[in-house]
Amino acid sequence: MNVWGNKLRLSIFGESHGDAIGVVVDGLPAGELIDRGGVSRDMLRRAPGRDAVTTARRESDGVEILSGLLGDRTTGFPICGVIRNSDARSRDYGTKLRPGHADWTALLKYRGFADMRGGGHFSGRLTAPLVFAGSLAKQILSRRGVEVFARAASVARVSDPAFSGNSSALGYRAISGRDFPASEEAEEAMRAAIMEAKAAGDSVGGVVEAAAFGVRGGLGEPFFGSMESSVASLLFSVPAVKGVEFGDGFRLAAMRGSEANDAPYMDGDVIKSRTNHNGGILGGITNGMPLVVRAAIKPTASVSIPQETVDASDMSGTTITVAGRHDPCIVPRAVPVVEACLALCVLDALLSAGGIPA
Amino acid sequence: MNVWGNKLRLSIFGESHGDAIGVVVDGLPAGELIDRGGVSRDMLRRAPGRDAVTTARRESDGVEILSGLLGDRTTGFPICGVIRNSDARSRDYGTKLRPGHADWTALLKYRGFADMRGGGHFSGRLTAPLVFAGSLAKQILSRRGVEVFARAASVARVSDPAFSGNSSALGYRAISGRDFPASEEAEEAMRAAIMEAKAAGDSVGGVVEAAAFGVRGGLGEPFFGSMESSVASLLFSVPAVKGVEFGDGFRLAAMRGSEANDAPYMDGDVIKSRTNHNGGILGGITNGMPLVVRAAIKPTASVSIPQETVDASDMSGTTITVAGRHDPCIVPRAVPVVEACLALCVLDALLSAGGIPA
Amino acid sequence: MNVWGNKLRLSIFGESHGDAIGVVVDGLPAGELIDRGGVSRDMLRRAPGRDAVTTARRESDGVEILSGLLGDRTTGFPICGVIRNSDARSRDYGTKLRPGHADWTALLKYRGFADMRGGGHFSGRLTAPLVFAGSLAKQILSRRGVEVFARAASVARVSDPAFSGNSSALGYRAISGRDFPASEEAEEAMRAAIMEAKAAGDSVGGVVEAAAFGVRGGLGEPFFGSMESSVASLLFSVPAVKGVEFGDGFRLAAMRGSEANDAPYMDGDVIKSRTNHNGGILGGITNGMPLVVRAAIKPTASVSIPQETVDASDMSGTTITVAGRHDPCIVPRAVPVVEACLALCVLDALLSAGGIPA
Amino acid sequence: MNVWGNKLRLSIFGESHGDAIGVVVDGLPAGELIDRGGVSRDMLRRAPGRDAVTTARRESDGVEILSGLLGDRTTGFPICGVIRNSDARSRDYGTKLRPGHADWTALLKYRGFADMRGGGHFSGRLTAPLVFAGSLAKQILSRRGVEVFARAASVARVSDPAFSGNSSALGYRAISGRDFPASEEAEEAMRAAIMEAKAAGDSVGGVVEAAAFGVRGGLGEPFFGSMESSVASLLFSVPAVKGVEFGDGFRLAAMRGSEANDAPYMDGDVIKSRTNHNGGILGGITNGMPLVVRAAIKPTASVSIPQETVDASDMSGTTITVAGRHDPCIVPRAVPVVEACLALCVLDALLSAGGIPA
Repeated sequence: MNVWGNKLRLSIFGESHGDAIGVVVDGLPAGELIDRGGVSRDMLRRAPGRDAVTTARRESDGVEILSGLLGDRTTGFPICGVIRNSDARSRDYGTKLRPGHADWTALLKYRGFADMRGGGHFSGRLTAPLVFAGSLAKQILSRRGVEVFARAASVARVSDPAFSGNSSALGYRAISGRDFPASEEAEEAMRAAIMEAKAAGDSVGGVVEAAAFGVRGGLGEPFFGSMESSVASLLFSVPAVKGVEFGDGFRLAAMRGSEANDAPYMDGDVIKSRTNHNGGILGGITNGMPLVVRAAIKPTASVSIPQETVDASDMSGTTITVAGRHDPCIVPRAVPVVEACLALCVLDALLSAGGIPA
Repeated sequence: MNVWGNKLRLSIFGESHGDAIGVVVDGLPAGELIDRGGVSRDMLRRAPGRDAVTTARRESDGVEILSGLLGDRTTGFPICGVIRNSDARSRDYGTKLRPGHADWTALLKYRGFADMRGGGHFSGRLTAPLVFAGSLAKQILSRRGVEVFARAASVARVSDPAFSGNSSALGYRAISGRDFPASEEAEEAMRAAIMEAKAAGDSVGGVVEAAAFGVRGGLGEPFFGSMESSVASLLFSVPAVKGVEFGDGFRLAAMRGSEANDAPYMDGDVIKSRTNHNGGILGGITNGMPLVVRAAIKPTASVSIPQETVDASDMSGTTITVAGRHDPCIVPRAVPVVEACLALCVLDALLSAGGIPA
Repeated sequence: MNVWGNKLRLSIFGESHGDAIGVVVDGLPAGELIDRGGVSRDMLRRAPGRDAVTTARRESDGVEILSGLLGDRTTGFPICGVIRNSDARSRDYGTKLRPGHADWTALLKYRGFADMRGGGHFSGRLTAPLVFAGSLAKQILSRRGVEVFARAASVARVSDPAFSGNSSALGYRAISGRDFPASEEAEEAMRAAIMEAKAAGDSVGGVVEAAAFGVRGGLGEPFFGSMESSVASLLFSVPAVKGVEFGDGFRLAAMRGSEANDAPYMDGDVIKSRTNHNGGILGGITNGMPLVVRAAIKPTASVSIPQETVDASDMSGTTITVAGRHDPCIVPRAVPVVEACLALCVLDALLSAGGIPA
Repeated sequence: MNVWGNKLRLSIFGESHGDAIGVVVDGLPAGELIDRGGVSRDMLRRAPGRDAVTTARRESDGVEILSGLLGDRTTGFPICGVIRNSDARSRDYGTKLRPGHADWTALLKYRGFADMRGGGHFSGRLTAPLVFAGSLAKQILSRRGVEVFARAASVARVSDPAFSGNSSALGYRAISGRDFPASEEAEEAMRAAIMEAKAAGDSVGGVVEAAAFGVRGGLGEPFFGSMESSVASLLFSVPAVKGVEFGDGFRLAAMRGSEANDAPYMDGDVIKSRTNHNGGILGGITNGMPLVVRAAIKPTASVSIPQETVDASDMSGTTITVAGRHDPCIVPRAVPVVEACLALCVLDALLSAGGIPA
């Protein structure tokens, strides 16, 4: 299903080695100024080929906007953004199922007809349109005082000690200005863990944390429309995400209620809490505290270590050494993707709750 | 939003202290035999008042089926199941926001009009209709060789050592026959942790794990329709769930790719993998291995320890000691709920993928 | 599919001869006062057994509201309304397919498992929950200056000459106060046409027209979310509706553009048009003129004249004389149903466009 | 809202004078051979500038397919088709509201930010992507024995006497081979009516009828998912459609039940009816008879006769003479659009009912 959202609707398309990938973004308010430079900067944060810890595939990931803008303003009509695939090397792919990839499941679902070159429609490359859509959302939110950030909370077994999810926007903003999306203290150890795995022909994963500041309370719906359901349904669309938690998430399972409750108090005429273990969401509805979510990113499936597998041409057992250009760790490039997802969810929730002030 | 699902659609309604709660289940195939005794047994697994570790509120949770059955067979028309609220004591609730509950966020969203007695529509009591719907789904799945189980994987800091997510249906089935939904080895320590918190007027959380066996490969959709998105969107509707992970989930973030990949091999004419770190899902699509999901359950918000809070009658600071009858740990009663959610998702995915054999 | 709507969501359930029928209405704003007497009056307008031109089946159609109200105010949570079936005589139904009914198509779709007694879930009786939901919508709209009416524009070949779709709310209001939902001038000829068909053991149809006054401009979405798409999708859910047109509808096909265009002019600071051939909708969006829609109602399928048919017990040809209690003309009872549908669509459009003033 | 469909999902985008228009088609089965020549022929049937009765704007309407095909086969991934706008002359548009167009309502909805040059996203040009999507659907259906046709049933006051909705596929196929989409007997009078209006600087409308043959029974859902609801919701997305009726539609309102019922009989082992007044749908579900639908097309809004209007630049009254290149009658070009819509609905219903044989 290529459609997501309520008032804001995304329709994504494309394959890694096809002509192009893209997204139709519908439901944005009319009259919003779009800073194309800001969009390009976000695209660049996700783009491959910029750093030793990422794939050598080079894509400029420029977005051609086919509709929905008049000059630099949104018209209220659907925006279609298209990103051409320029550096696809399809000779890298054969009939052996690459372990950890969707090759296995695509074979079952599409009976061999899917275009799985480079991962096809399952490729992490499909997150580029998400970053494009999220960049539009962030610009619109920013004008209403909502800021959305993300960072690498951990890579392999290296956690960033810099700050916890309860801290202010300052910490996130500091990281957002860095090339490597973690604190200065953590970068070296994280890079080392990645390069060590790369040297071994292997890969590592990590955890990306995103936070939204300035989100008003009362967003989301009880039960099936909970903010957690909305954010998780979008995050679990992102390839390689295998876990999602809000606030302290799985650590809440080991806490006592008296600790976990985020007891409210009056700060002037606003209700706040001194802690934020619930990540800004109670009963599925935002409470005005920072919205905090973490996504577990599994290690890149492509490794050059030989692995057992199946050859789909005759359904026989074999081994595979995945050649090609791969990220030894996708976490740094996943940071702007998770950030984009959170921004899109917050904007959708705001629009669904009655729109945003012009 | 009270609607969930694609081909299978749930519409939930009701409040904890209103007249009734219930659900409309639409999209079930026609001609399915429903074992009402089996439904009652599932309802009893979630019902309160059966054990010292649960609330003293007593509800028989009998379901009146208003539509959709002719005798004991589904007609293909929507099934509406209604559960009356009989033991509601509304004098227990006042104007103080109960910390950790949705009282705070409901105040922001509904401006004081919401019926928040007993948690209202946000109450864990709303999971009873989910268990009802899930029980129908499990019976339909069971006839097609699909079995769905759940268990308490941990309570407070006590993990069940019995088996890991990779084991066969045998281990889950053994636990499913027990009154306490964990292994015999773990029960005592888990109970002790709960009673210790209860004695302190406090509460604990835990992790519930569910698994589905016999699910065919090829279910789910790439991107926005991933199996993970579907399962997570339903699980995050369940009150108190703050984290969801598939397979090894957050632990995958610290693994190497060569370990995490679940390399495929041929077992006869079926593709299998020797490990199942990805919980039966690759690229959002099932691969035929057991579907494994874990949900983090936060500690019960209602504790009798005094806490800071806000009185909504005049928006002033105050303290609260939450009286009333509460579960010191909701995990045992959450087990059939998480199981129901997984069953509903699997059935929806099967129906969406072209239906099920008659 | 039993779910309809965007921000306002309806989930309908029940069968004509089952225990009950009903609807879950989700998305209504919190704090709305509901006049239960007004609801009962609307239910009575649709209820059977009140007039010689309707069926002899008697149902009080009292609605039990299970959730979503606290006292007489909406809470913002889903409202479930249940209507018990009391006067069902199932002995009236056998295995012969009743011509013009869904018996034929239900057999193909549900392979004999559907509960088709009295038409089952396809019965016109399922419109009672729609009238209930529509009555809630009309009360909420009325407080914002939006009034919704309907009338029998024609019965058999008798058209009501009273006024055209362009007239003011006055004409509709006059008719809404009458027992027979047409003008005094038309009633006698319409009744005669019905009684003539009844005497012949036959039935007649007609056209119901609904109009909404006070609807602000700018509602609806271009293309797939047009107001016409929304209204038509709901109206075509109503059994017996086989045509829907807006403004002058099919008569527009024979007009010249210069006549059909509803040229705009300034009336104070509001744009208006001197004609309303387009029924208040241009480009799928409301323009502030009265919203006018007409639905073609086919003649009641149950007639006591012998007809050719198929016996589903052995798939053999046979003849049938449909006994039982039937409306010789459903049009008068369809009037409040079409009115309810238009009210629900207008409220959904208002809520989707950013909500309604408190 | 730019999204339509259940299992088959369309996302449409673009403006008449923007860079491009297009559609994302998701949910098509994998492995379907696409005849690009057939697609081009369908696009040409709708394209402007081919005949004196259409606009002088010339667009080749070639579709660039960005995704979802591998060679000439569907992959199962979303297909994005893009059509460039080449012959847009934006100097033709000013600030005066063109009567009968969406200029008025777009002003209310988008507060002046919408790109309304050439009608913007409301333009009939947006039906080109529908024809593209419908062409894919027709090819897939055709291989399963389902044929979909359309014709101009009337233009202005000229009805085509050739055949009624009950006739076989033969009549439709004969017309489908003609340049003018009506019978030879009707063409001259229809053309005369169009040219007469054109000479007067005016325009005319008409009725388009579509029919699908070979559609199996049992498709569609009761109530909100009726086939009529699905088809009407798509047809009312098409600009200029103001009425939709199935089978004999509004004429059913004047019939007796004994005549309208389409009494069933056994034809071999298949249930059929000797008449088809209900257009192949009973109770919202297909019965296997030809699916017949008619859409009322209002006269082209652009006429060169001076009309009263409002100048949006200062909200003052004025007059307008709409210059530019316009169709004096859109009916001939609407024929392939209505045909496409019906094909898309039938394919969506088939896919929703369990898929189609490979």
